[in-house]
Amino acid sequence: MKQKVFIYDTTLRDGTQGEGISLTVASKLRLAQKMDDFGVDFIEGGWPGSNPRDMAFFEQVSSLELKHAKISAFGSTRRANIRAEDDNQLKLLLDAKTPCVTIFGKTWLLHVEQVIKTTAEENLKMIKESVEFLKKNGRIVIYDAEHFFDGFKDNREYALKTLRAAIDGGADYLCLCDTNGGTLVEEFKSIVKDVCDFSKDVPVAVHCHNDSGVGVAVSLAGVQAGASMVQGTLNGFGERNGNANLCSIIPNLVLKLNCDLNCAPNLSKLRDLSLFADEMANARSDSRQPYVGASSFAHKGGVHADAANKVKRSYEHISPELVGNKTRVLVSDMSGRALVMMKAKELGMEIDAKDPKIKDFLDELKQLEFNGYGYEAADASFKLLLAKFLKKTKPAFAVHNYRVMVERDQFKEITRSEATVKLEVNGVLEHMVAEAHGPVGALDLAFRKALVRHYPQIMDIDLIDFKVRVLDSGLGANAVVRVQAEFKDGDSIWGTVGASDNVIEAAWEALRDAFEYKLMNI
Amino acid sequence: MKQKVFIYDTTLRDGTQGEGISLTVASKLRLAQKMDDFGVDFIEGGWPGSNPRDMAFFEQVSSLELKHAKISAFGSTRRANIRAEDDNQLKLLLDAKTPCVTIFGKTWLLHVEQVIKTTAEENLKMIKESVEFLKKNGRIVIYDAEHFFDGFKDNREYALKTLRAAIDGGADYLCLCDTNGGTLVEEFKSIVKDVCDFSKDVPVAVHCHNDSGVGVAVSLAGVQAGASMVQGTLNGFGERNGNANLCSIIPNLVLKLNCDLNCAPNLSKLRDLSLFADEMANARSDSRQPYVGASSFAHKGGVHADAANKVKRSYEHISPELVGNKTRVLVSDMSGRALVMMKAKELGMEIDAKDPKIKDFLDELKQLEFNGYGYEAADASFKLLLAKFLKKTKPAFAVHNYRVMVERDQFKEITRSEATVKLEVNGVLEHMVAEAHGPVGALDLAFRKALVRHYPQIMDIDLIDFKVRVLDSGLGANAVVRVQAEFKDGDSIWGTVGASDNVIEAAWEALRDAFEYKLMNI
Repeated sequence: MKQKVFIYDTTLRDGTQGEGISLTVASKLRLAQKMDDFGVDFIEGGWPGSNPRDMAFFEQVSSLELKHAKISAFGSTRRANIRAEDDNQLKLLLDAKTPCVTIFGKTWLLHVEQVIKTTAEENLKMIKESVEFLKKNGRIVIYDAEHFFDGFKDNREYALKTLRAAIDGGADYLCLCDTNGGTLVEEFKSIVKDVCDFSKDVPVAVHCHNDSGVGVAVSLAGVQAGASMVQGTLNGFGERNGNANLCSIIPNLVLKLNCDLNCAPNLSKLRDLSLFADEMANARSDSRQPYVGASSFAHKGGVHADAANKVKRSYEHISPELVGNKTRVLVSDMSGRALVMMKAKELGMEIDAKDPKIKDFLDELKQLEFNGYGYEAADASFKLLLAKFLKKTKPAFAVHNYRVMVERDQFKEITRSEATVKLEVNGVLEHMVAEAHGPVGALDLAFRKALVRHYPQIMDIDLIDFKVRVLDSGLGANAVVRVQAEFKDGDSIWGTVGASDNVIEAAWEALRDAFEYKLMNI
Repeated sequence: MKQKVFIYDTTLRDGTQGEGISLTVASKLRLAQKMDDFGVDFIEGGWPGSNPRDMAFFEQVSSLELKHAKISAFGSTRRANIRAEDDNQLKLLLDAKTPCVTIFGKTWLLHVEQVIKTTAEENLKMIKESVEFLKKNGRIVIYDAEHFFDGFKDNREYALKTLRAAIDGGADYLCLCDTNGGTLVEEFKSIVKDVCDFSKDVPVAVHCHNDSGVGVAVSLAGVQAGASMVQGTLNGFGERNGNANLCSIIPNLVLKLNCDLNCAPNLSKLRDLSLFADEMANARSDSRQPYVGASSFAHKGGVHADAANKVKRSYEHISPELVGNKTRVLVSDMSGRALVMMKAKELGMEIDAKDPKIKDFLDELKQLEFNGYGYEAADASFKLLLAKFLKKTKPAFAVHNYRVMVERDQFKEITRSEATVKLEVNGVLEHMVAEAHGPVGALDLAFRKALVRHYPQIMDIDLIDFKVRVLDSGLGANAVVRVQAEFKDGDSIWGTVGASDNVIEAAWEALRDAFEYKLMNI
C-alpha cells in the first residue's frame, strides 16, 4: 500500500521572496494554470493585503478553470487582544474567496515575547480563534507553525500546546515549518515523528528551507516520519537560499520512495514545468539542478561517457525520460576515443572507429583545449575540426586577411568601427568593407558581404548568442580570451568557439567557423 | 570527545568534469595553495596521463610550499590480466611523485562484466595487486570503490569482497562512492554502517554526488554512520549535478554536528574560498548557495527584515560571520544613501550626509548600473564618479580621440594591433601610437606614451587582472560588454569598470579610469 503525499506549492508567495525573483499577475496566473495541469494539489497564491499584485491575483484567479488544484490564500493569526471577526487581515483572507486558507502562528516563545510582544497564553488563543473563525467560514484551513523546530527544541511542551490550539480550532493540516532552515535530517525526522504520534488523525505537513543545503532531504525525512503533505517551490525559489525544491522532491517521492502523488502521471512534464517557472520569473535556469537541469544527464569524462555508452544505466541514477530530460555527451580534454565516436554519430558523421587518424585528432583536440578552446557548446567548430582532420571537407572559402579599426571621437562623442575582409571564394578574390558601432558587428557584416554573391543563404544566419571569457585573467591585457557564439538559421542552431590573446581574433574565429559550417552543410 | 573528520577535496579533478568548468594549470596551483591555507587535508590534483594539463600540474605542484595538505594523484586499478608493474597507468601515478594516490576499482558486477569485460575473480586481483604495488612504493593509498552503493544493493557479498581485496592490498582508506548520486539518506546510512562494522580499523570515507539533490545530506549521514573522511568539491563543482558541496558540508560538520575538522579554525574564510574557486573556474558565483552565497543572509520580506532587526537570531540559523558572510537587508533608497556614505568613508572621502547632490548621484548610479556598469569590484571607478559628482576633482588629462586597428594576415599567419591616442595634458597635445598583439595591449601602451612625459609614475602601474563579461548575450554582436580590470602599483591595488556595446570602448573606459585614478591620488 503506497503512502499518499499531497504537494503544496508556494512559488507564487514564498518563492517571490527570493532575491531577484518577482512575478507579474499575468505570470502568476499562467504558472497557476500550468501547475494545475501538472497535478499540484494546493497552490498558495499570495498574501491578500500585503501588496496590490496579490490582491489582483485573487480577483482574477477565479476565472481560471482549474481541473484539480485548490488555491490557498496566505496570512497570519489575528492580532493580539482583539476578536478574530474584528481582524482586518483575516477579513481580507476571506475576501480572497479561496477554497483553502493557510495561516501562520508563533511556536517559539522568543518570537511571542520579543517579536509580536504578547503573552504565551494570548498566542494560544490567537491560534485557536483564528483557525476557528476561518473554519466557521467554510475554508480548508492549513495551520503553518512558524519556527516550529527552533520552538520545539527550545520548549517542547509549549510547541505542542500551539499545535493543540490549532487542532482545537479545527485545523485540517498542521504544517511544521523550519523557517530558518537550520535543522538537519536526523533531528528533523525525530521531531516530525514525535508530532505525528501527538496529532493522531490530524494530518501533518512539512515546510522546509535550504539554508543548510538539506532542504530536499529533510522534506523527504518528514514524509518518512509520517507527514502526508510537502510544501515547497518550483526550482527552489525563495528567501535566502530558497525553499525546498519541489522539482527534486517530487521525483524522489515518486521514483525512489514509491509514494502515491496525484502528479505522478505527469512526471515526464517536470522539466517543462521547471523551465516554464524560470521563464515566468525571468530567472536563468540552473543547468545543475537535480533531475531537470540541462547538465543532469550530461557526460563529460571519457571513462564515464564510454561506460554510459556501453551500459546506459551504469552512470545514470534514473532514466532521464522519466522527468522529461535527456542524456547529453560533452566534449572536453578528458575525452576518449569512444566519446569522439559518440559525438560524431550524434553529429551524423560516418567514421571508422579503427581509423588511426582519430588518435591524432584526439591529441590535436587536447592541445587546442590546452590553448583555451572549449567545445562543450561548440558542436559546429568540433565537427569542422573533425571533418578537416578526416579530410572529409574542403572549405568553401580561403581567408587572405582582415582588418578592423575602432575610432573614438571624444568631442563628437561617437565611436565607430570599420572592418575589411579579403577572401578567395570559388577562385574569385572578394575584398569588402563594412562599418558598425562595435568591431565584431563590423567584421560580421564585411564577412557576409564577401560571401553573399556566391552563397546568398549566408544572409539568413542570425548571431543569437555571443559570450566572451577571459582565461587566466591574471595575465592582464595578454590573457587568452575565449569567444563562444551561437547562430540560428530557421530551425537549426549551431555553436562555435574561438580563442586567442587577441579578442578580435577570437571573435573572428568564431564567425569564420559559423559561416564555414553553414556552407559545409549545403 | 569530538568525532575527527578529514576533508578530501577533488575540485581539481572531479570538479573539472562539471559542464562549463575548466581550470588552467595556473588556476589549479593557486587553488591548491588557497585550499592548503584553509586547512583542507587532501587535495586530489588530477589524473596523470589523462590530459596535458594534469601532467603539467603534477610537475609544478611540488614547487608549492604546502603547510598541511597532502596532494593526491587519481587513477584506476591495473588493466586485466597483466602485472601491476607492467601497467603504464599505474607507472604514471608514481611518476606524479605525490605522497598520496587514489585509485578506483569496480564494485558492481554489471560493470565488471559489461564495461571492463573481465571476471569477478580477476577484478578482485586487480584491486588487491594495484593497491599492493602502490603501497610497496610508499604511497598513502585511498581505494575508491566506484558505484559502491549500486553494487552493494545488487550483490552485498561481492561488494564486500572488493573491499576485502583493497584491505588485503594494504589500503589506508576505503572510500565508498555513490557514483551515480542516486542513493537517499536512510539507505545510504545503513549501508555505510554495515561497511564500518565490516572494515573494523580500516577507516571509511564517502564520495557523493548531487543527482538526487541530497549530496550534502548523504555525506553528513555517512559521517554519522562512522565515516571519518568526506570527499567533495568547492561550490559543488562536478559532473552532471555536481559533487557533494564542501562549502555546505564543512560548516554543517563544524557548527551543527560538532565534529573535529582541521580547517575549523579557518571557517570564517569559507566564503572567501568559495568566491576564489568561482574566480579560478571563471564561474558565476551562485548567490543562493547555502552558508556562503550572497543571498544566504539577505532578508527581503518586510516582516522578516523587521524581525531580523528585532531579534537577529530569529531568522538566521547561524551567525553569518562564522562563515565570513554577512546579513543584508535588500536595498531601499535609504540604505542606498547609507551605502554611499559608507563607501565614501571607506575610500577616505569627506562628504556631508545631508548634501542634496547625493540623491542625484544615486539616480546617476542606478542609471549607470542599468546600462551595464558594476561597481562591486571597481572602487576606483566608483570613487572617480563620486568625486566628479561632488566636484572634488579635475581630471589630469582630456581625451580627444583614440583609434585601434587589428590586422590579420592569413599567409604570414600574424595578427598585429596598432593604437593611436590623442590627449591634452597640461595644455599640451600628446598624440602617440603603439603596437602589440592584442588591441587592449596596444591601447594601453599608446595611452601611457601620451602621459609619461608629464607623469612618469604612469609606467609603474601593472595591469594585473582583466575580465570581460557579455551582459544580455542574447543580443549577439550588439550585446553590452562589461570589462573589469585591476591595477597594481607597489602595494596599492585598484579596480575599474567599463561598459559598452563595443568591447574596445569598454576596455578603454577601464584603462582611462585606472590612469585618471592613479593621477588623482598624487
